[in-house]
Amino acid sequence: MDTNDGEQDCSPVYVHNPHLEQMKDDILYHFNLGTATHNLPAMFGNVKFVCVGGSPWRMKAFIEYIAAELGLEDPKSEYPNICAGTDRYAMYKVGPVLSVSHGMGIPSISIMLHELIKLLYHAHCTDVTVIRIGTSGGIGLEPGTVVVTKQSVDATFLPKLEQVILGKTVVRSTDLDQGLAEELFQSSKELSQFETVIGNTMCTLDFYEGQARLDGAFCSYSEKDKQDYLAEAYKAGVRNIEMESSVFAAMCKLSGLRAAVVCVTLLDRLKGDQLNSSHEVLRNYQQRPQILVGHYIKKQLSASGKT
Amino acid sequence: MDTNDGEQDCSPVYVHNPHLEQMKDDILYHFNLGTATHNLPAMFGNVKFVCVGGSPWRMKAFIEYIAAELGLEDPKSEYPNICAGTDRYAMYKVGPVLSVSHGMGIPSISIMLHELIKLLYHAHCTDVTVIRIGTSGGIGLEPGTVVVTKQSVDATFLPKLEQVILGKTVVRSTDLDQGLAEELFQSSKELSQFETVIGNTMCTLDFYEGQARLDGAFCSYSEKDKQDYLAEAYKAGVRNIEMESSVFAAMCKLSGLRAAVVCVTLLDRLKGDQLNSSHEVLRNYQQRPQILVGHYIKKQLSASGKT
Repeated sequence: MDTNDGEQDCSPVYVHNPHLEQMKDDILYHFNLGTATHNLPAMFGNVKFVCVGGSPWRMKAFIEYIAAELGLEDPKSEYPNICAGTDRYAMYKVGPVLSVSHGMGIPSISIMLHELIKLLYHAHCTDVTVIRIGTSGGIGLEPGTVVVTKQSVDATFLPKLEQVILGKTVVRSTDLDQGLAEELFQSSKELSQFETVIGNTMCTLDFYEGQARLDGAFCSYSEKDKQDYLAEAYKAGVRNIEMESSVFAAMCKLSGLRAAVVCVTLLDRLKGDQLNSSHEVLRNYQQRPQILVGHYIKKQLSASGKT
Repeated sequence: MDTNDGEQDCSPVYVHNPHLEQMKDDILYHFNLGTATHNLPAMFGNVKFVCVGGSPWRMKAFIEYIAAELGLEDPKSEYPNICAGTDRYAMYKVGPVLSVSHGMGIPSISIMLHELIKLLYHAHCTDVTVIRIGTSGGIGLEPGTVVVTKQSVDATFLPKLEQVILGKTVVRSTDLDQGLAEELFQSSKELSQFETVIGNTMCTLDFYEGQARLDGAFCSYSEKDKQDYLAEAYKAGVRNIEMESSVFAAMCKLSGLRAAVVCVTLLDRLKGDQLNSSHEVLRNYQQRPQILVGHYIKKQLSASGKT
């Protein structure tokens, strides 16, 4: 452990659960992995970066992209899905980079993160950085703008997550690593390929009514109500809206993982609700967080002499 | 419209959104379908039963199973995924039966249901019954027992869903169709292939801490705290725990859809938290809601002279 290394602190991944020690083995059910059936240290011990995103297809595309970026590409390699035995999540790995899908919404990413944190713990990983690369709706931004999250806030614009434990509500902080956000923002400036901003990200439990959309099956408010709500959000520093960042921030903080959220905005919610850009335009937008984070990872690995 | 038919009332599917009428077309983004690009009445107008479940693989297996049950099987038929252009959800159809995956958790199924309700509305469907066929953790039941939900309750055992709209909490009822639950229970008795009970289903936002599991990355309570909480739940009539039924019940009720929840229990939570049964045993369990609901649908279609 090199305590002189200012860039990376060699902290292990923390679980906070005394019961785990008493378990003979641990089944990570939604990954179809387990300590009795898989050699997790051998499979994952060298992981330094975990990138997560909603869509399994996008997370496969990311591992192909980062493999090429890092020069780890094997033209014959197929990057098999490590969780092939289940359809709950998809997982890919190349070198020190792990790419995992998490589905949509706080509960779905929360299951994945519990099992990911246990996986990194069982595999004795150190110095792990976790970055969510996702899609979102923007507020007052040109579509295609990338937002690096400063703070993840709830639907009342407060930086907290209400976690229900045994029927009682516990409030958790959604603080993210400010240094990492700044480094990612710098990476984007170096790249200079698309607009990137640092701003607050609102995390909601619902895509339609929860995000003030007018195009769901149910809507009991007016266009003016919607605009007023989004204007209030903008005033509170919110630049984009998605559905996973709060629990992602809270769980990574609890387990001592450096974490960041990098989402592209697919539309400007002040101007509409429907995602009516062409598939090609949307696909191009979705590549932007991958390009930004790919550049950042490459730079970090070069600095540490690992590529 | 046959008003003498006591079994089925020919109610249309309701959306409650005045803004929809003003939209030139409607993109169901997460299905990769839309009113401008697809003839929804031709594709879906005859749908009478929609079965939904978390896993895309399971919903594909269900369409194959129900096709055989209804004698609609085409040996050359491949049952293509209607949502093949996206990986957010998978959708399959045979005759009057639609099978759709919804991922894990309230937010994920809520996005799907908004778009499903709009799809049924745009397709002018009538008399639609929606059944969630899922998996769950049981309380005090032999693993493999099927629970037909009487009431979906929250983590404090109350039959309500807190829906956040424009930052304010609105409470919605999670009532399900009691007649349909009773009919499904009768179907199971006729089948007599596995144990089925009617009971309350607790719907949580989290799989680990939210369900009092001792095997997550974080756990701040004791085995006794867990047992006390589950005992309280049992006393309130809760027989199983899952993560989607409350918003499913609330949204189906709002849109006038007859709805039921039929979940198999994969383990008894009083005896453990880990899913350590063999894959074969779990696969067998997961087929039970399909078999029950398949039998029910077949019976309903025979009664209405449609098979």
